[in-house]
Amino acid sequence: MALIVQKYGGTSVADIKRIKNVVARVARYRENGDRVVVVLSAMSGVTDNLIKMAHELMPIPTEREMDMLLATGEQTTIALAAMALHARGVPAVSLTGAQAGITTDGVHTKAKIRNITPKQVHALLDGGQVVIVAGFQGQSPEGNITTLGRGGSDLTAIALAAALKADLCQIYTDVDGIYTSDPRLVPNARKMEEISYDELLELAGAGAKVMQLRSVEFAKKFGVIFEVRSSMNNHPGTIVKEETRSMEDVIVRGVSLDKKQAKVTLVAVPDRPGVAARIFTELARAAINVDMIVQNVSREAAKRVTDLSFTVDEPDLLKAGKVIEGLKKEIGYRSMDVNRSVAKLSIVGVGMRSHSGIAARLFETLANAGINIDMISTSEIKVSVVIDLDKGESAARLVHAAFLE
Amino acid sequence: MALIVQKYGGTSVADIKRIKNVVARVARYRENGDRVVVVLSAMSGVTDNLIKMAHELMPIPTEREMDMLLATGEQTTIALAAMALHARGVPAVSLTGAQAGITTDGVHTKAKIRNITPKQVHALLDGGQVVIVAGFQGQSPEGNITTLGRGGSDLTAIALAAALKADLCQIYTDVDGIYTSDPRLVPNARKMEEISYDELLELAGAGAKVMQLRSVEFAKKFGVIFEVRSSMNNHPGTIVKEETRSMEDVIVRGVSLDKKQAKVTLVAVPDRPGVAARIFTELARAAINVDMIVQNVSREAAKRVTDLSFTVDEPDLLKAGKVIEGLKKEIGYRSMDVNRSVAKLSIVGVGMRSHSGIAARLFETLANAGINIDMISTSEIKVSVVIDLDKGESAARLVHAAFLE
Repeated sequence: MALIVQKYGGTSVADIKRIKNVVARVARYRENGDRVVVVLSAMSGVTDNLIKMAHELMPIPTEREMDMLLATGEQTTIALAAMALHARGVPAVSLTGAQAGITTDGVHTKAKIRNITPKQVHALLDGGQVVIVAGFQGQSPEGNITTLGRGGSDLTAIALAAALKADLCQIYTDVDGIYTSDPRLVPNARKMEEISYDELLELAGAGAKVMQLRSVEFAKKFGVIFEVRSSMNNHPGTIVKEETRSMEDVIVRGVSLDKKQAKVTLVAVPDRPGVAARIFTELARAAINVDMIVQNVSREAAKRVTDLSFTVDEPDLLKAGKVIEGLKKEIGYRSMDVNRSVAKLSIVGVGMRSHSGIAARLFETLANAGINIDMISTSEIKVSVVIDLDKGESAARLVHAAFLE
Repeated sequence: MALIVQKYGGTSVADIKRIKNVVARVARYRENGDRVVVVLSAMSGVTDNLIKMAHELMPIPTEREMDMLLATGEQTTIALAAMALHARGVPAVSLTGAQAGITTDGVHTKAKIRNITPKQVHALLDGGQVVIVAGFQGQSPEGNITTLGRGGSDLTAIALAAALKADLCQIYTDVDGIYTSDPRLVPNARKMEEISYDELLELAGAGAKVMQLRSVEFAKKFGVIFEVRSSMNNHPGTIVKEETRSMEDVIVRGVSLDKKQAKVTLVAVPDRPGVAARIFTELARAAINVDMIVQNVSREAAKRVTDLSFTVDEPDLLKAGKVIEGLKKEIGYRSMDVNRSVAKLSIVGVGMRSHSGIAARLFETLANAGINIDMISTSEIKVSVVIDLDKGESAARLVHAAFLE
């Protein structure tokens, strides 16, 4: 007799047949006596099609109207899913984000949830209904329809689970759970039974595309335990929760490889205060996410210049180049080198906090295989290195074997 | 500096190009200094597609969810139209039915408008915005999304025009206005400059498919003058309004032909009180619209039986037959004859009230052409006759020539 929030993504509700599969699962939980709230995304392809129409009208569509437009995608799915449950004789009611009491700020296309008033959801659950909520959307205090941006449906599910004090929050997706590494790159990767919020945050930040950071951050903030699992089978997935003492026994939880990185080096940057601040402020202003930053040992110390390297997501490289070019006069660096042939390899684990020598063991593993390390950055529970792109996959397999097999 | 409500139907917003055409017109009115409220239908085909998906899930989809589903159609159009105005630099805001303050009863799929609170619409108009409202939809007092049923977008426009005290309400469609007869049948048919509510009601009831009856009834009730005109050109359309004295000078306003009729005759029905009531109560309960009813002179008066004939819309014939069969034991008629080869020809005009002999002139026109009249029914401003289907079109041309050319 648990209260369960289940979220299904766009591929899980891509067509009528899959919607029927989803509601079959929902019905099974209900037959077991559970109360179920279902959060749904738009059928896959629908949102892209709406965006395409908008772009035929404006290169940069106005954001309030974009939200009005995109919110129809989830609204369509919830109505169809409710009908699919009715066809099975299961009582169900669909609710838009606004109807479910999800209030956001007024920042269209990337609104933040401010408050959830789940009065209506509670009343319907008490009346024996399955409640189907449109993911990704809410309503601003002024009554406008808003959307939550990328990964918004996960956020809806986790926030609803928090507001409802649900016993369980299940994020159904097209993979079986969270793996120790990407199984397409590392055949020995295995599904984890559990992972802490912080580890998942570091893995996601390191290129593992399981969930958007902010859904995990939200879950951590409100202590929502959730399970990432597959909508295609009945295997248990991976439980994401606050770390426990026993989690520290596992030193490295996962290995991730981000092949979409680029390294930018500014050669002979004047070594005076404020230069780095200028550069990274301008990059941030252009919404370019800079990950690792290394100020290399100055090769020409006498000339009071230094070399500065940083990594950006490869798709942002052109934009970053323009920003840096624009600063050339002001800052006076000699040249800009760009290297697209880099990958970032990271190991993540809360156990690192209480175990020393992990970074050294990583460096040694790579050195033994003749893999050169270009940049290093460490956090309390993560070590990342930048290496040659063409060594990336073999390095991931080696490191996975060294720490996890 | 007028306040204008414009409604565009599904074919007028069928694709991105047509949406651009619609907003070009809206922008012209606005440049003239008018304040414009635009009511839009779903892009043609969209609603049918949603209905198709629903039917893949349930033969008779649940009505609350059907409304949730179908309301997305208009919501998509209004967002796109707002973007199209923004692309022209025209400030515009889209509103769902609920956001526009349209409150309905809770009868899903055919809700009635109870109240419109156009506070938000007024505020946006005062702020210089074009306001784009989703037609066909509203919100019940419980906060559920409702739809208004067939022709609902016309109703939204007329009700908004009433609530806003608009100076003008324009119903844009794919014809130039209301014609004295269907131009495809009667080449000499011409567009009317004006017509009274009552005449339009009688014409629509007699098979002229211009507008749904209840939109016209609503306009009559609240005195909303509206214009039916084409979204494809700039020709003036037909003004629909309360009748004026001068309208009576035109005796016959229009000729309509309904070829989708069927005649049912019950032979030898017991001639006792309550029999007709039983039959027509059961037909009404099955939502079958019976138009003309004639109790023929009894051929077998001595036996205290009579023949009873009535017309139904041809698509309802099968259902009507079943209802009548079900009553056979109880009522005890001898047999049921069905004639699908009939058409109903009607002449309509408020001038008939003050002119006598119109019906006689109609009968004479038909008799001269050797066309036999099967049934007759008359109202204050209409005369209808049932004739052979294959004589229908030539009869319509003859009658049009006799009264209107």
